[in-house]
Amino acid sequence: MAKLADTALDQLFTKARTRNGWSDRPIPEPVLRELYDLVKFGPTAANTTPARFVFLQSPEAKARLAALSSGSNGPKILQAPVTVIIGYDLDFPETLDRLFPNAPGAKHWFGDPVAKEVAALRNSSLQGGYFILAARALGLDVGPMSGFDNAAVDKEFFAGTNIKSNFIASIGYGTEENLFPRNPRLAFEEATKIL
Amino acid sequence: MAKLADTALDQLFTKARTRNGWSDRPIPEPVLRELYDLVKFGPTAANTTPARFVFLQSPEAKARLAALSSGSNGPKILQAPVTVIIGYDLDFPETLDRLFPNAPGAKHWFGDPVAKEVAALRNSSLQGGYFILAARALGLDVGPMSGFDNAAVDKEFFAGTNIKSNFIASIGYGTEENLFPRNPRLAFEEATKIL
Repeated sequence: MAKLADTALDQLFTKARTRNGWSDRPIPEPVLRELYDLVKFGPTAANTTPARFVFLQSPEAKARLAALSSGSNGPKILQAPVTVIIGYDLDFPETLDRLFPNAPGAKHWFGDPVAKEVAALRNSSLQGGYFILAARALGLDVGPMSGFDNAAVDKEFFAGTNIKSNFIASIGYGTEENLFPRNPRLAFEEATKIL
Repeated sequence: MAKLADTALDQLFTKARTRNGWSDRPIPEPVLRELYDLVKFGPTAANTTPARFVFLQSPEAKARLAALSSGSNGPKILQAPVTVIIGYDLDFPETLDRLFPNAPGAKHWFGDPVAKEVAALRNSSLQGGYFILAARALGLDVGPMSGFDNAAVDKEFFAGTNIKSNFIASIGYGTEENLFPRNPRLAFEEATKIL
């Protein structure tokens, strides 16, 4: 495999920015399906793929989430064409006979409730990373957010299930409105080591 | 922004595979630096960027990790030119005055130890997702693994720090050795909802 073109690396990483303002251009449903069809192939431990995605596009659905979010997140959720709740399904072991058939006992690897929750949080967050970059790869902008009441969102959107909210992200076509200056990052020497 | 070319989407997602066998082609240090310089720009909550990356490339360092890993992971670690330990630094709030200067009190947002640990696991896993896709964008193959003794790895590699291991991943140039058939994925209707 060759290195991707600089324009692609810029679009995915180097020049991509978290958006706070959104144009009213909608996202057609086929694009949401195309997005999922990229995200689903990202690797997870034992192919657990615990992430679940709730795309909020109706004004009513966005208002239900906006009411449970903090700070400036409410208006951003209402303005974006779609905001997604990225959750994780604690019942993911039930899918493993089908998703990881090469290890018939895999569903029993997650019997300990704490280990199961950690695995669900870790792997659904990995999938959240794939989601953010897959959206950018499709030409969408992304605005991920953690400022909301997780327990209230679970009650509002996931009642009667074992799905828990992880984080949320607006997607669409961003504007320059309230765009932060790029914040600094840790230097290679601060964040890494070579042994 | 336009959608990336199909060849790029294939390289990142659709045709990319978790590798279990590795050629002996090394990864030069400038490539590791280029990799970090992509990963560092991926978004995290309040720009916390809690992930820390330990690149193991000497036979001695790889052997220390292989001894603490389970199943078939040991031989894979020894064969790959580099295996990285992706950890998270629980002292990340100390960096926020510098990394998130627009909110001078941000380091106090993570005072609760459980919330801090969840934020570190969530955001370092997001960065783990960026890492996997950035490696693929640079033409590298990736083999992520969760099968190792986290507590023992923390003691072996992170003693005297507040860094904890999250997951590990071999990177390099993969072979077809022990390549699994592609496992199934959940259908759009099983993993998503549009409201």
